[in-house]
Amino acid sequence: MARIAVDMDGVIANYVKKQFAFHQRLTGFTLSHKKLNGQKLRHYVPEDIGNKITAHMNEESFFLDLEVISNSQQVLKELQKEHEIYIATAAVEFPLSFNAKYQWLKKHFSFINDTHIVFCGDKSVIHTDYLIDDQPYNLQAFKGKGILFSAYHNLNNNEFERVNDWEEVSEYFKRISV
Amino acid sequence: MARIAVDMDGVIANYVKKQFAFHQRLTGFTLSHKKLNGQKLRHYVPEDIGNKITAHMNEESFFLDLEVISNSQQVLKELQKEHEIYIATAAVEFPLSFNAKYQWLKKHFSFINDTHIVFCGDKSVIHTDYLIDDQPYNLQAFKGKGILFSAYHNLNNNEFERVNDWEEVSEYFKRISV
Repeated sequence: MARIAVDMDGVIANYVKKQFAFHQRLTGFTLSHKKLNGQKLRHYVPEDIGNKITAHMNEESFFLDLEVISNSQQVLKELQKEHEIYIATAAVEFPLSFNAKYQWLKKHFSFINDTHIVFCGDKSVIHTDYLIDDQPYNLQAFKGKGILFSAYHNLNNNEFERVNDWEEVSEYFKRISV
Repeated sequence: MARIAVDMDGVIANYVKKQFAFHQRLTGFTLSHKKLNGQKLRHYVPEDIGNKITAHMNEESFFLDLEVISNSQQVLKELQKEHEIYIATAAVEFPLSFNAKYQWLKKHFSFINDTHIVFCGDKSVIHTDYLIDDQPYNLQAFKGKGILFSAYHNLNNNEFERVNDWEEVSEYFKRISV
């Protein structure tokens, strides 16, 4: 039995798709992971567009209707049979997002108990064996074993073991339990 | 330098005073720590009164205007010079309380950075050296050294080192840094 913390944005909640769609409505241009080529969005788009995207993400409802990242529900349900699963999300970056994020979790991940939901800032405070996260700085702060979930902005990072999707998360934990 | 997590309700935020005042308005009777004599409120008051008090605490604004517990600001500011201070609060017991609790912290503990605020359930997930908490079950779950902050409902607990107020917290950390 391992204790596994799972980040929310970019790992189970697809905020990137909504971000890209908003960018498309603003500019008429279609973003892609390939175009961004490992850069952060705010380093790629003009400053005023970047600010509008950030303001959009700061709206109270932004996180309410995000799509679930493929297979995250099934794999977490499966992992939960053997492991202790925590959702650890940096809600304090978007202080108005607490309720929306909580409601989203209750809707899509109702099998995760309230006691296993953590809203934090600095992920050094998370005490689990593993953290699955798309932000290298979160994995750097974390004291346990960090697993990098692929995202357009982390494609050039080689510091951590990488998983590209939830099938690979499932494979990873099958390997370590052998 | 130690990493110290500090619970919110009953340790820096005086919810008990507001709870007792509400009980007084409901029943005309004045509660006291002495009358409760180590019992939980819901074991002392009739069930319908207990339910009304819980409903009151579940209102979105309940946590917004709590008094700050004496000297908690000064002592935490002082401890912050040497130690890493986190606020770790079990907001998921009252899911509508996230925003109110966050606003309260920003108002009264603005010297604690957003990255050092944690809303959690199960405090086994908190990775710090110390946890100051009034709930024995939180200290039982915690993996580091637990310090019990006195409250009417924990007066009979002898499992943890006890501090009766923030002066004693200050003394405690002076002793351990010698």
